[in-house]
Parts: sequence; structure tokens; C-alpha cells
Amino acid sequence: MIKVEEAIKIIEANSTKMPTKRLAVSKALNYVLAEKIVSPINMPPFRQSAMDGYAFKHTIRHQYDIVGVSQAGDHSNIKLEATEAIRIFTGAYVPDDADTVVMQEHVMANKDSILIATMPEKSSNVRPIGEQIAKDDIVFEANTLITPAAIGFLACLGITEVTVYKKPKAAILVTGNELVEPGQKLKKGKIFESNSIMLEAALQTIGIKKTKVFRVKDNLKATKKALKEILKKNDIVLISGGISVGDYDFVKEALLQNDVKELFYKINQRPGKPMFFGSKNETLVFALPGNPASSLTNFYIYVAPAVKNRMGFAAIHKPKLVRKLNSDIKNETGKTLFLKAKYDETNVTVLNGQSSAMLNTFAVANSLLIVPENVENYKEGQEVFLLPID
Amino acid sequence: MIKVEEAIKIIEANSTKMPTKRLAVSKALNYVLAEKIVSPINMPPFRQSAMDGYAFKHTIRHQYDIVGVSQAGDHSNIKLEATEAIRIFTGAYVPDDADTVVMQEHVMANKDSILIATMPEKSSNVRPIGEQIAKDDIVFEANTLITPAAIGFLACLGITEVTVYKKPKAAILVTGNELVEPGQKLKKGKIFESNSIMLEAALQTIGIKKTKVFRVKDNLKATKKALKEILKKNDIVLISGGISVGDYDFVKEALLQNDVKELFYKINQRPGKPMFFGSKNETLVFALPGNPASSLTNFYIYVAPAVKNRMGFAAIHKPKLVRKLNSDIKNETGKTLFLKAKYDETNVTVLNGQSSAMLNTFAVANSLLIVPENVENYKEGQEVFLLPID
Repeated sequence: MIKVEEAIKIIEANSTKMPTKRLAVSKALNYVLAEKIVSPINMPPFRQSAMDGYAFKHTIRHQYDIVGVSQAGDHSNIKLEATEAIRIFTGAYVPDDADTVVMQEHVMANKDSILIATMPEKSSNVRPIGEQIAKDDIVFEANTLITPAAIGFLACLGITEVTVYKKPKAAILVTGNELVEPGQKLKKGKIFESNSIMLEAALQTIGIKKTKVFRVKDNLKATKKALKEILKKNDIVLISGGISVGDYDFVKEALLQNDVKELFYKINQRPGKPMFFGSKNETLVFALPGNPASSLTNFYIYVAPAVKNRMGFAAIHKPKLVRKLNSDIKNETGKTLFLKAKYDETNVTVLNGQSSAMLNTFAVANSLLIVPENVENYKEGQEVFLLPID
Repeated sequence: MIKVEEAIKIIEANSTKMPTKRLAVSKALNYVLAEKIVSPINMPPFRQSAMDGYAFKHTIRHQYDIVGVSQAGDHSNIKLEATEAIRIFTGAYVPDDADTVVMQEHVMANKDSILIATMPEKSSNVRPIGEQIAKDDIVFEANTLITPAAIGFLACLGITEVTVYKKPKAAILVTGNELVEPGQKLKKGKIFESNSIMLEAALQTIGIKKTKVFRVKDNLKATKKALKEILKKNDIVLISGGISVGDYDFVKEALLQNDVKELFYKINQRPGKPMFFGSKNETLVFALPGNPASSLTNFYIYVAPAVKNRMGFAAIHKPKLVRKLNSDIKNETGKTLFLKAKYDETNVTVLNGQSSAMLNTFAVANSLLIVPENVENYKEGQEVFLLPID
């Protein structure tokens, strides 16, 4: 039995980064860059008007003849005398002879000429070439998470493909003779199998869209055979059930016989103690407890960070939360507790119904409140750490 | 020009809930329930052992003969005398004649009999029928967000379909003669079009997987014609650019000519002032500023909540954050500022580079810090509100 912090460290040390691939920027949301990106162009690529107004060469003059127009998208490099200006719009090319744009609200204009009422300073409202980024400057360092803003920025530089870390292929193996698929008739002694659909959904929340689900009866031969295939073709393997010490729990044996290296078994926590973590080559195996709430707790605490590590995420992308407790908490177990909780802008409430078999509470929680094993008491009003799960 | 709070209220008042549909639970992640769900079964449906151990009828006896075994999934309702016990495993059916399970660590056992070393209290380790939820009890109220835990809970009750609010169909219309698609050659005076791909990605983050993108040149006729079709077939319409006061901004006119009702135009904020919001029947139209950073700001502040309202989300699902400021902020504009910022567990830093044309900063921000229009100063250490965008 190991401590939670040790378990986290061992998983992190074994969560190697996935291989990389080229991907269209349009498909790259929530991937992590595996390369440094430099800008192929100056942005803006030409001197751009920042306003709707008039472009002219800044002198002491206030009156100018209008000799042309520059719309966004035009490239008519109109020649301007010192007494001349052009009508110009936001984003449009500023002629080489002009150095300043006056916003239209600051001039009195008729069809042929303007009188500048409020003279802007020289260079006003002209975005210089490369103001946003210069050619060959760094756009993003490697390991940057690709957000909507990052996609927009890459696209505005004309970049259409990037190198990213692949997403891991994931599989779920469900064990248990007592399980019946939802939609079937529930015979006596049986319960509906819900962990696979729950874990599939949990994987979706961290970007794994498709997960293969396999089901086996509680026996060594079937479990071993299923695992052999699954281990070959996947980067993350989740196993639901069959890992406690009961005589009918074959999973650990089937894993060891498939040359999965045991990295730890059992963690000093509640819920979620009976968990096996191992690896074969770079494939990670999490044999999760069969109780749904335990299984999902360990998904959030251990599996999700491992998947994100493999995808190249940095921890910084999602900070833990700190909130003030709405009630006292006692911890007489000597174990780390993960309590289903609900936080708001400032506080956190521990929810009723923390039993490991119960998902009701989990469904209305937005966080797991962490009570470390060496903490016997938290007092109302004290600040505590949460892992958000919303 | 209206205030930010007014804009938010008007949008909320017009964001009607989408029609409902039946959906497989396996597809229902991040949808919102449009019905109250009651449980079709008792859960657990039978008296379940909570431990690996031995089931017996609680008396003053400590010694029992082992007369059978109950694995998870079995339904052999073994008859037990007062002197008899059965081997039983977690999740297994507890025979009608037994009322207590002793965990295996608390007995001395040989092949045929056990001696209970630590006697549990009567009824220990037996989960009663309906402990988690009773038949016909409420599983979830309407308007519950379907999380992985909720999916697990529905599935464990055998529920395979639910009624949810549909996701809105979304379209993006891009205007601007200056725009060239990324991957094409960039001619003088042109820039790469990046808002559509950015807004598509932003919509993906709130569950809208596919968005149709349309492009028109800056002229009234083309814009009007494109809008006519788009308005018929979509629930949310985003328009990028063409909404400021320049002579070449046809969008507002094209909207009005398509019988889109103007609900507001221009908001007292920076960035993102020139925005039009309107509706036609229940379709919402957001004409966003052309500057990428302004466009994305208004997406997070206005569009995302509207989409979520239409999907039935309650505000409570994602609280605002409160953080301590790492520096002073001045606001001499009289406008509400939305500043790209980065928060950690306790503090928030305003990032350099807040220009409305620049996406660089946005790409490394994880939040928008809100400075209300009537606040002239925030001091270092003061607590401020953030909208998380990670």
C-alpha cells in the first residue's frame, strides 16, 4: 500500500509523451504543440489603418484635398502630395506617402476635402509592419496547448499545419459475472454494468473521443486472452473490477502473465484503495476498483493526469482550486480522503453520500476535496484544496 | 451604446431553450436533461454483500460451517441453518436466511468452517435493497447537466435513453474583401482570415462540434442573400466583421433587411465595442467585431453563455473565479475592460499586450479579468472577478 503522493509520482514518471504527428490547425484544438512555431510572415504584413478615417502626411496643415480611397483589401499605393489625403478604412493599406490616420469623428469633411478639427500625433492609428509579430519571431514554444485563440493566431499567420503529440488510444476492459448491459432484462443477483459508459464519457471530457470497450467473464483464461490483444493496440488501458483480494479476482494475475510490470497495487486512500497500476512498453494499465464512485474518483485523480501528460499537457494548464470550508471535516482513517464536493466563487461544501458504491453524489459534485492522510481535522472556514471536475 | 450588464441581460432574456429530443445515454455527455428522471428499479436490486467474507445469521455464535458460496452474479438462495454460513464476495447476493457479512480478514477459516475472531454488528456489510435509490424515487431533476458520473448513474439503473435539450445549429458568416484563406498566397493589402477557424474551435469547446462557415465579399447584396439562407437553417449565427461604422460595413443593413430584430448595437466596453445582437424568430444573431481578440472576447462574454442557455445550462454549472491581483489596474476609459489574464491557485496576473488586434496574449491567457466601467482603480492584492476560459 503506497501513499497518494507516491502513486501520483510513479504515474507521472511513467506517463511518457506520445509520438508526434502533423495535423491541420483546424483539427488541433486541445492538442499540445510538439514543435516551436516561428512566424512565416510579418503581422500585419503592411502598414494598416487602425481606424476608419483619413490618411495623410503629418505636418502643421489642417486642411487636405481628398484624392482617393483605400478599403480593407485594396492595394492601390496612391501618391500623395503634402496637401492631399485619402479616405481610409480599418485594416486598409496605408499609402507609402502617408504616415498618420485621423479618425473620421475628428474631421469636418465634404466631398472633396477635410478639415482636421482634432489633430492626432504623428503616426497615430497606423499599425506598423510586424507590430503583432515579425517574420521568424517565435509564435509559440513547444508544449503550448492549442486553444481557440492559438488556432486563430496560427491561422492569421497563414499556418495550416502543426506538429502535435498524438492522443493516446484507449481501451476499457470490463470484468464481472454479475454485470448485465443496460437495456437487457435484469435477472436476480445481477446489476447493470455502468462503469464502461461512465469511463468512456470521462475520457471524452479530456479529449479521447473513441474508446474500445471489451467485456469478459470472471476467469483467468478469458481475461488473459482479452488483455493480450488490448495491450498490443492501446496506449492507455482501463480495467474495471476484478482487482480486489477476493478469490474470484483474476485481473492482476492476468496482467502479470501478460508481462505487465506492476508499478503499484493499493493506495492509502478512501474511496479507491484497490487499484493496480502497471505498464508494458509505454502502454499504461490502470485496473480500477469496480465500485462506480471509486472508479471515477481514481479516474480523475490518476488516469486523467496520465492521459494529459502523454498528450504533452503541462500541469499549469489547470490549476487546483483553493476554497473556504463550509463545515468541519474529521479524518480518523489515516488515509487520504477524496470527498465529493460543490464549490462556488469562494466556498466549498462537502456533499452528503460519500459511499464508494454511490454515484448520485458524484453526479451533482463539481470537485473532489482532498483531505491528506496526515490531516485529522479541517475546521470550518479553513482553506482547502480541490480538484475541479467540471 | 449600452452597458455590459444590460447586454448580458438582453441576451439572456432572448436565449430561449432549444426544443428537446430523445438521446442515447451513451451520447448524452454535456447535454442537459429536459425531463425529471425516476428510477425504474431499486438499487441495489437485492441485498448485496459490501465485502469479501462470509454471510450468516447474527447470533451469539462464533463458529459456523461453510455450506456454500455466493459470487457476484450468482442467485443461489442457499438455505442456512443457525450454525451455517456461506463464503460470499463483494457485490454478491446475500441469502435470505443471512443478515450479516463478516469480512474475511476478521475470521479464521479452514475448508469447512470459520471461527469469527472479530464479531461485526448485526446487518454489517449488507447493502439493503434500494440503499442507493428506491424504485420510483427521483434520480435527477430536469435541467441537470449530464456529466460522466450522471451517465454512470443512469446506466446503473438500466436507463438507456433520456430527453435532453438539443444543441443549437450554428453558422459563421465571414465578411471582408481583405481576407485570404490560410494556405493561399498572401497578396499585398490582404491578410489571412482567421476568425472563422477560431470561432469554430471556440464553439467546439462548448459542445458545438460542427459549424457551417460561409464567406461573402463586402457588399450588401451578397451579404443579404447569404444571410437569408443562414437564418433559415440555424439557431445561432455568428458574423465576423463588417459591423463598425465604416462606409463599407453592410452587415447591419443586411440583417435589418432580413427582418432580424435589433436588440442592441455597441457596448460600453474595451475591447469588443462594435457588436450587434439581434434575433429572428428564436435564432440569435451576433455580429462580432472583425478584430480577432475583440471577436473572441465577445464570444466568451456573450456567445458562450447564450449557447449554454439555449442548451439548458444553469449559471451554477461554472462559477466565476475570485483571485487576488498581482498589480494595480487603472481604468480611465469609463468602459468595462476585459483583460487577458492568467490565474493560478490564489492570484491573477494581467498579461502584456491587450490590443484588440492581437491574439498572442489571448493564446496564453486562461481567463478574462473584468474591470467594471465604474471602477477607476484596482489595487494590488485586491480581489477581482475572472471569467475562466480554460
